[in-house]
Amino acid sequence: MSRPITPPTSKSARLRELLAGPVPVTAVGAHDGLTAKLVERAGFDAVWCSSFEVSASYGLPDASLVTMTQFLSAAEAMDAITDIPIVADCDTGFGGPLNVAFAVERYERANIAAMCIEDKLFPKMNSFADAAQDLLPTEEFVLKIKAGKEAQSDDRFLLIARTEALIAGQCIDEALYRVHAYAEAGADAVLVHSKSSRPDEILELGARWDNRIPLVAVPTTYASVSEQSLFEAGYRLVIYANQGMRAAVKGMREVLGKLRVAGHAESVHDDIATMSEIFELQGMTAAFRTAP
Amino acid sequence: MSRPITPPTSKSARLRELLAGPVPVTAVGAHDGLTAKLVERAGFDAVWCSSFEVSASYGLPDASLVTMTQFLSAAEAMDAITDIPIVADCDTGFGGPLNVAFAVERYERANIAAMCIEDKLFPKMNSFADAAQDLLPTEEFVLKIKAGKEAQSDDRFLLIARTEALIAGQCIDEALYRVHAYAEAGADAVLVHSKSSRPDEILELGARWDNRIPLVAVPTTYASVSEQSLFEAGYRLVIYANQGMRAAVKGMREVLGKLRVAGHAESVHDDIATMSEIFELQGMTAAFRTAP
Amino acid sequence: MSRPITPPTSKSARLRELLAGPVPVTAVGAHDGLTAKLVERAGFDAVWCSSFEVSASYGLPDASLVTMTQFLSAAEAMDAITDIPIVADCDTGFGGPLNVAFAVERYERANIAAMCIEDKLFPKMNSFADAAQDLLPTEEFVLKIKAGKEAQSDDRFLLIARTEALIAGQCIDEALYRVHAYAEAGADAVLVHSKSSRPDEILELGARWDNRIPLVAVPTTYASVSEQSLFEAGYRLVIYANQGMRAAVKGMREVLGKLRVAGHAESVHDDIATMSEIFELQGMTAAFRTAP
Amino acid sequence: MSRPITPPTSKSARLRELLAGPVPVTAVGAHDGLTAKLVERAGFDAVWCSSFEVSASYGLPDASLVTMTQFLSAAEAMDAITDIPIVADCDTGFGGPLNVAFAVERYERANIAAMCIEDKLFPKMNSFADAAQDLLPTEEFVLKIKAGKEAQSDDRFLLIARTEALIAGQCIDEALYRVHAYAEAGADAVLVHSKSSRPDEILELGARWDNRIPLVAVPTTYASVSEQSLFEAGYRLVIYANQGMRAAVKGMREVLGKLRVAGHAESVHDDIATMSEIFELQGMTAAFRTAP
Repeated sequence: MSRPITPPTSKSARLRELLAGPVPVTAVGAHDGLTAKLVERAGFDAVWCSSFEVSASYGLPDASLVTMTQFLSAAEAMDAITDIPIVADCDTGFGGPLNVAFAVERYERANIAAMCIEDKLFPKMNSFADAAQDLLPTEEFVLKIKAGKEAQSDDRFLLIARTEALIAGQCIDEALYRVHAYAEAGADAVLVHSKSSRPDEILELGARWDNRIPLVAVPTTYASVSEQSLFEAGYRLVIYANQGMRAAVKGMREVLGKLRVAGHAESVHDDIATMSEIFELQGMTAAFRTAP
Repeated sequence: MSRPITPPTSKSARLRELLAGPVPVTAVGAHDGLTAKLVERAGFDAVWCSSFEVSASYGLPDASLVTMTQFLSAAEAMDAITDIPIVADCDTGFGGPLNVAFAVERYERANIAAMCIEDKLFPKMNSFADAAQDLLPTEEFVLKIKAGKEAQSDDRFLLIARTEALIAGQCIDEALYRVHAYAEAGADAVLVHSKSSRPDEILELGARWDNRIPLVAVPTTYASVSEQSLFEAGYRLVIYANQGMRAAVKGMREVLGKLRVAGHAESVHDDIATMSEIFELQGMTAAFRTAP
Repeated sequence: MSRPITPPTSKSARLRELLAGPVPVTAVGAHDGLTAKLVERAGFDAVWCSSFEVSASYGLPDASLVTMTQFLSAAEAMDAITDIPIVADCDTGFGGPLNVAFAVERYERANIAAMCIEDKLFPKMNSFADAAQDLLPTEEFVLKIKAGKEAQSDDRFLLIARTEALIAGQCIDEALYRVHAYAEAGADAVLVHSKSSRPDEILELGARWDNRIPLVAVPTTYASVSEQSLFEAGYRLVIYANQGMRAAVKGMREVLGKLRVAGHAESVHDDIATMSEIFELQGMTAAFRTAP
Repeated sequence: MSRPITPPTSKSARLRELLAGPVPVTAVGAHDGLTAKLVERAGFDAVWCSSFEVSASYGLPDASLVTMTQFLSAAEAMDAITDIPIVADCDTGFGGPLNVAFAVERYERANIAAMCIEDKLFPKMNSFADAAQDLLPTEEFVLKIKAGKEAQSDDRFLLIARTEALIAGQCIDEALYRVHAYAEAGADAVLVHSKSSRPDEILELGARWDNRIPLVAVPTTYASVSEQSLFEAGYRLVIYANQGMRAAVKGMREVLGKLRVAGHAESVHDDIATMSEIFELQGMTAAFRTAP
């Protein structure tokens, strides 16, 4: 099987450097090229190619309906127009160990810096949804991690294992047991997900972890905790997984409502970005230069 | 060649009814399923699958780089999750008459209600961009319209011809000449584009048109004009082509900036939609019902 | 959710008529538009959009790596250029009941006449592969069939349930039990797969079936049995699932070998179709007519 | 804009080495992963991702209907499962200079070794079709070459310019003038296309070329000429552009016809590859190893 040769430096190398640094690394969720560009422009370190956001962008539930083809295509669009690493949220890895191995090969080819897979059953349902959140047995998920790491051709590519133990109602001990097992299996970092409204369980788990590999946090429900507090508890990567899309929806909703009532475009003039701003974001000026 | 059989009623039939009605029909630009859903929810009649927005969503200039495959895929995602007609902005029709015929066949198959093609040269540059805006000779564009209409299998599908005559700096007479020629060639409606900051040329042209077929307006620069005024001047379809995306960008930009400075998610709590709102938009509840 | 309106007649209606007719209905496997066209030209009744062939066309194992996006795209390409029904091989239905419901909605939208799902675990491995062939419990597969049938908007669309009981080493009784359960659940036909070198188990099962709904056979290994014998045993649809691709590979292999040795194209002149034949298959002449 | 970092070696480097070597380099046309794999297995040096073949695989005319998205996707599927360089036939470059620059960026990202663009007008019609074959003025095509070369991030990627001067009925002098102009503009090789039944014009042009950069030949109609003769006349790359697909069509046609008449699969047993051969080509055995 053809493998692209290892380049001397890369976005994955950069992400590794950042994770070894003295400050929290921050990523924000995106679902297409433009939203990834906005994340970069706002000064964040990385883009989280969120499966929740990508699913929602299709108007589809976050429930393993959107395919790897579509997720990878979104990640590629992001990578092609930004200079920061893309961390791809790959749900359960699209099936079993063979699917994970295949995904690693394809995401690496596409210059994606890192892939994150989670220990729920396929097909999965969004972690915050009021639905069953069944976990895959630890040893089966370990096989997925190993298959993924073995499939990797560039040492710097990162495979992040995500445990949904706390989401599934398990205790911190069980979650920590899984973090250990996943680190042992070769994961480059472990994302510990929580839907608690308080950061307590996340912080306690961090305090009890030996920091062999970095932890990753997604403070969606326990929103009051600061990046710095998470960092001090061992979470080197903090992901704001969906706030960007939620801002976009709120903005769009208000403007469309106003426009509907007013019946003319001037009514929303002050509530929207200018055409020039969009032109600039999409590289329109660069395009003029090349066009004859 | 396989042709889907004509269904007894359809979104295109609905759009035709609306265009024959006593009030202005309104459409708003979208670039993916979610934004189309928001347009529907806000109460508009149709979705404009904007090539400007779709290009921008990839972070790419609006300059014939994004392919028909990608535009059609966006339109299909919109149609699949909404109940209102999708009007697909198809730039110059992706090439010559054969490309237009092919596009009509494929967009019809995908249940898209209407397609709009414009009389600029391929590859095109966005109409508001500070670049050359060369027009195709009238007789050549007429061939495109005829090829498109001939390729149509369902009589109710609409082919909208768009003239960029005013954008290209031509006078109202020339624009009107093209409107006549396009109507004669079989276009179901004619979109007259303008980048004037005032609606005068648009209103004058409307007043001089015999209303054989509906006119369409896109009040982006001449934003102060009301739907009602346009309607009275003969414009039965008013398209707010890009205000939705511009609202989303402004909303996202502000929230990301705030988040970057604050370093915790609670800082933007009041500025973003809730998770439940997104769940509802993406049909998460319906999904629970079907999942075991 | 938007549902295309039921057309007065359709490819699925045609397939139903054929299945109710006095002679065996025959389908042949294909993996892209051209191979589907060749199946139609040879006089067969339907095209089997084979997941084995589509996977192989990507050079990938038939093991749930290729996505629904890719399979559906192949089926659409086939449907768009043929006049015979496309029967889509959808493996295990891409996940659980929700995935099946979603697939039905999307395949119907794409004018595909029938979908076939099988009762193996996801991710699956090809039935003839020397690998584990674990079955889903009957009641779980029944949920998938019901979800699929409920998602259907046009009554004439067909959902074919495929049992791999014999492939998994179960006895005829168990296979028949599943055929009953699937018919009960609403399947429009049941495909009974077998890898025996003899048709005996297939014929016996057919003889013991009450013919409430049609059976479907895929005589890959038990190749000596005739369509007529299968028909008399209750198999109204006979699928030659992969012989087309296997013919193509043999033909291409021999020609490339000869060309490699000879070092000039004339060496294979008599072993290949002419350019005109390909032009005719791809509709090149029709294209000239439309192009100016 | 993000650019993947230059790897230390690559398929494009390998193609350059081959082109500088003492024997003719040979490529064969393919249209998907499997056919590319068969080209590799037969011992050829490279794969020609033929736009004629890819169009035909969709059952569509070779007339700029298939999009860059689809062509690139075919080339990526080929590259992912072979170890030899892929040379992508990119027709007219999908539009103007900006489109060529964009294509170079995207094909490079996808690890494609070389891209070939031709000097016909967009949309184009196949060179052997009985249709108008209008050429782009030399200076305009030169702008495309320059835009492509400037967009390149890895020095080893190759941009091959193809002149259709002889196809368009121009004399050898005119063709040679274009070869000079394209070499001057930075093309890494020039493909001189001919539809003559004799190799004379191709050989004469080669003899009159100063060999600054390699010439490329596609002996479809002048099939009797040997690779060695072409090589001696300056053609370092010889492309058998479509013989593989033509072999596949002939093989499939004969087998389907036989099967239709016989009514049982055994009738074609000796005319088709075995299941094991396909399994081997698609990496089924490797898949078992990874699957648990």
